[in-house]
Amino acid sequence: MRFFHYKRNNNALKITEKQSDTMTNKSWNVLVTGGAGYIGSHTVLELLQANFEVVVIDNFSNAYKGNDNIKPECLLRVEKLTNKTVTFIQCDVTNWNELKDVFKKYEFHSVIHFAALKAVGESCEKPLEYYKTNVCGTLNLLKVMKDFNVKRFIYSSSATVYGVPEKLPLVENMKTGDCTNPYGKTKYMVEEVLKDLCTSDKEWSVISLRYFNPVGAHSSGQIGEDPNGVPNNLMPYIAQVSVGKREFLYVYGNDYDTHDGTGVRDYIHITDLAVGHVKAMIYQKIRNSTGFKVFNLGTGKGYSVLEVIRAFEKASGQKIPYKIVERRTGDISASYADASLANKELNWQATKNIDDMCLDTWKWQQNNPNGYKC
Amino acid sequence: MRFFHYKRNNNALKITEKQSDTMTNKSWNVLVTGGAGYIGSHTVLELLQANFEVVVIDNFSNAYKGNDNIKPECLLRVEKLTNKTVTFIQCDVTNWNELKDVFKKYEFHSVIHFAALKAVGESCEKPLEYYKTNVCGTLNLLKVMKDFNVKRFIYSSSATVYGVPEKLPLVENMKTGDCTNPYGKTKYMVEEVLKDLCTSDKEWSVISLRYFNPVGAHSSGQIGEDPNGVPNNLMPYIAQVSVGKREFLYVYGNDYDTHDGTGVRDYIHITDLAVGHVKAMIYQKIRNSTGFKVFNLGTGKGYSVLEVIRAFEKASGQKIPYKIVERRTGDISASYADASLANKELNWQATKNIDDMCLDTWKWQQNNPNGYKC
Repeated sequence: MRFFHYKRNNNALKITEKQSDTMTNKSWNVLVTGGAGYIGSHTVLELLQANFEVVVIDNFSNAYKGNDNIKPECLLRVEKLTNKTVTFIQCDVTNWNELKDVFKKYEFHSVIHFAALKAVGESCEKPLEYYKTNVCGTLNLLKVMKDFNVKRFIYSSSATVYGVPEKLPLVENMKTGDCTNPYGKTKYMVEEVLKDLCTSDKEWSVISLRYFNPVGAHSSGQIGEDPNGVPNNLMPYIAQVSVGKREFLYVYGNDYDTHDGTGVRDYIHITDLAVGHVKAMIYQKIRNSTGFKVFNLGTGKGYSVLEVIRAFEKASGQKIPYKIVERRTGDISASYADASLANKELNWQATKNIDDMCLDTWKWQQNNPNGYKC
Repeated sequence: MRFFHYKRNNNALKITEKQSDTMTNKSWNVLVTGGAGYIGSHTVLELLQANFEVVVIDNFSNAYKGNDNIKPECLLRVEKLTNKTVTFIQCDVTNWNELKDVFKKYEFHSVIHFAALKAVGESCEKPLEYYKTNVCGTLNLLKVMKDFNVKRFIYSSSATVYGVPEKLPLVENMKTGDCTNPYGKTKYMVEEVLKDLCTSDKEWSVISLRYFNPVGAHSSGQIGEDPNGVPNNLMPYIAQVSVGKREFLYVYGNDYDTHDGTGVRDYIHITDLAVGHVKAMIYQKIRNSTGFKVFNLGTGKGYSVLEVIRAFEKASGQKIPYKIVERRTGDISASYADASLANKELNWQATKNIDDMCLDTWKWQQNNPNGYKC
């Protein structure tokens, strides 16, 4: 099933618009960076199910490598679930030579770029690493893409680019920047680079997907979020409390200007998010769209921390003990998306609700109390 | 005169605050990146005159290498003018290994970072190169500095970080960002990185100097601005018209909201600007200051294009023929600094007026009609 027939040769055929329209997904090769991570692995699964050919690169900085010498555990599971094959190469996007070798070996039609550092707190402690990996890693990738004339790019952006929301829901054309932490700034900076790139060269087709709060796991319970150490985000923390790995959940502040005082976020099921990437790629492929486009990926509905706790308790039948503590600096009170643009343009919308999110998280956590390591 | 005695050894003495206060500049080693460029070379001259030890690196991407195999022509002239020696190493700041070798060889107290791409128009055409060189090059340098525990940094920023001014004069605490071109964005992004770095690690001492419009040349007429190809900026263009290298000056727009309709800028003599760097470094050294600080370097006075033309005609005795043409996109109507903070904190202020700027430019241009190549 590996696509040796796609090995680059110097006379590689340039895909014309017409050809692109009529090609099946089968002959559409996608490079997925950071494809062994949480969002990456779920997206790879949806890409394979939509019959795309996928090459994953990952440097295992945050993903579990496992015992197989060829592929990480999560991708082995993806292959089992889909009965399809994915190509994996260990590669760091900040490494020019490694990346060039990947592009020499395979001819790609599109790149979906997840590889990045993602912990807000850590980004405040190690800003240079975040800027290097997230900004310079992306620049490195874009430069290699340009050199190999691969100009379709889907970028893993974030609702953090909006900074402190002026009003809600958040719409794509609202002001970005003024981010409260280096992580958010890296996402904002890369969006600015992508804008400038598309202005300078009209052949590029770039879609930036601004994720709200991805949670949940694949409905099989076989792949899910596998955080290293103490989880930074609410749902994996709740999940670890639910299986007794942690005693309490800390709720940071109950004096926000929200209906119950706890922070409100737009949680989106990881499978919905993954499908959003497939839709974005099909949009680029079918419409042969060029330029820089941005889409929110969220449900459009906000849930408070206390509501998420209750939903998780309902889904799992477990009590989630929690303690209200001080607000965390940098946290905003509420954030949720206007996701109508993605609906209109990409024909995408979230299909799963908070109960699905909690149920699938619970299933994954029960089956894999220690993540992929078990 | 080379400082072999400063070669790094593993037990290198850490400079304490007390020692720093009492050390002469003679034993204070400064790395100057991009030191063969226009602002770099003038700053090296002032550093040598203030008895600092200087190591210059440059990759000659925009500076003239000359015929000497060891040092570029501009630095040979700086040595003659000062009767002092500067160490030169050809090195690209985006190259990790090259940079590390420089830090292995010499022990630095401070770094002044000029190395960058600087043409606004070109940055719109080649944004990836600008982000790579200016942002990733700086990150590379900061990372090496951190690894070698060198934490004093003076950054070559620009008034472009203010974007379109809300009001004038521009004060350091005004809003930055919303820059009109990739060049300006790179300067803004690096300032954000530097802020985050100083927040994360309290040992860093970073000064960002926001230049207004550097013009002129050293009063000797021996070193000056040597642009490649068609000059992007007003003064070198005027200078080339004055010696007959170009027929006309193009004045971009005479319908701006200024007293004569042409764009108003805060021109600052290159020697004043260079001295600003020396003052900033002395400030870091003497006060043992830490954290992130920003200073405007300008005269505080704006001149229109027509006023600069008249001043140059007066200084040179030459007629400068010009043609009024359309505005350039991205150009703002007026920009000038409130430079009082640099005066108060760094004990710095511009001493040279527009006539000095024109006279010295004229002297340099007459002596060196083809720049350093003649």
